[in-house]
Amino acid sequence: MPATLPLPRALAFDVFGTVVDWHGGVRAAAAALAARHGLHGDWAAFANDWRAGYAPAMDRVRRGELPWTPIDGLHRMILDTIAERHGLGGLDEAARAELNRAWHRLPPWPDTVPGLQRLKRQTTITTLSNGNFSLLTAMAKHAGLPWDCIVSAELFGHYKPDPECYRGCARLLDVAPGELMLVAAHPSDLRAARAAGLRTAHVRRPLEYGPGGAMPAFEAGEFELVVDSLVELADRLG
Amino acid sequence: MPATLPLPRALAFDVFGTVVDWHGGVRAAAAALAARHGLHGDWAAFANDWRAGYAPAMDRVRRGELPWTPIDGLHRMILDTIAERHGLGGLDEAARAELNRAWHRLPPWPDTVPGLQRLKRQTTITTLSNGNFSLLTAMAKHAGLPWDCIVSAELFGHYKPDPECYRGCARLLDVAPGELMLVAAHPSDLRAARAAGLRTAHVRRPLEYGPGGAMPAFEAGEFELVVDSLVELADRLG
Repeated sequence: MPATLPLPRALAFDVFGTVVDWHGGVRAAAAALAARHGLHGDWAAFANDWRAGYAPAMDRVRRGELPWTPIDGLHRMILDTIAERHGLGGLDEAARAELNRAWHRLPPWPDTVPGLQRLKRQTTITTLSNGNFSLLTAMAKHAGLPWDCIVSAELFGHYKPDPECYRGCARLLDVAPGELMLVAAHPSDLRAARAAGLRTAHVRRPLEYGPGGAMPAFEAGEFELVVDSLVELADRLG
Repeated sequence: MPATLPLPRALAFDVFGTVVDWHGGVRAAAAALAARHGLHGDWAAFANDWRAGYAPAMDRVRRGELPWTPIDGLHRMILDTIAERHGLGGLDEAARAELNRAWHRLPPWPDTVPGLQRLKRQTTITTLSNGNFSLLTAMAKHAGLPWDCIVSAELFGHYKPDPECYRGCARLLDVAPGELMLVAAHPSDLRAARAAGLRTAHVRRPLEYGPGGAMPAFEAGEFELVVDSLVELADRLG
């Protein structure tokens, strides 16, 4: 059994892909909505296309082309851009609003809730996500995620991977950056957290983009821990 | 049985006095610390004196005499001011820091946890307190308060009763002010919330200042609901 590592004073979790299955949740929500409207399409491709619009939309805010926009608003802009090409151009306002709320009701990975329940007994657990505060709160309620508190990039007016998010999370929790560990499926997020002084745990999510999707590359030793589930994370933090 | 009222989309709770017993908690913490140091004093009077410094300290920040200061910092400033007159002048740094953390470990009122557990099944429940974010998070963990999220005045850079706090809480939760209800023991807090467009529920806490303490005055009809516990609040919201 691998050695355990010192317990951080707090754990901050990336959410989309790390804690919840956005691909499966969005795909299922689109398929259900489409069935009710008699529409056909490739909802796995639709989910990945929707997600692919996310980083470029945040970059438009970062460059000042858009004012600060909660992720709910960015998701809706992207949906309106891609709807036509996925056969959803005929959806009315109410149907689009409902589909957009799929991001509030994403399912946790099977290990998420048992892992978080154990980790919550060990230390303080929070979100640190680009999802807006109300989205993260609704998601936690729906999925039974037992966070001690909700921290969103919205609180800092900066999206990850801007350093303000990692430092701001430590400041709100009244811990030093080195007493906070980011848990994330995405190496880019972890690298930015490490540059801001945080500890890092990489959780591998091979199904993030659906069956057969690619896993992001990283170097051996880049992160303090590499685990395959939040239950394994609880085992490894002593 | 009184009629039930429409359920708000979210309930925001004042914390000190409304949800937790600051008087009993601080008195007990001071008494325990004093016993270990062989000191004697009137710890009920000490608790009330400490609390009495709170509003004037926030006013100093509001007037710009002090920079923005988390409540942990204000509590400590007040403690250092009143320690001598309560026979605690000899406490060293470690003992003062420990006593200051009494505000993180305040006990809930007997109806608090069962009331919040029921209300959480009915709607979204959050703190809306001048306590800093890390204090409220630690308190929830210690006392088992099942918040959906933690909202602190710290997130807005304004203390209650500034309107920015009430409006900011509604904005973070993505609800209209009229869809949010403040639950508080203090009429001044409720009046400011009402002026900002929120719904209001007054919970009476006759023991807030200890046995024999005064209850704040208010007019009949000032608030939408007046209850004696959070369990009664759950009964009254349909």
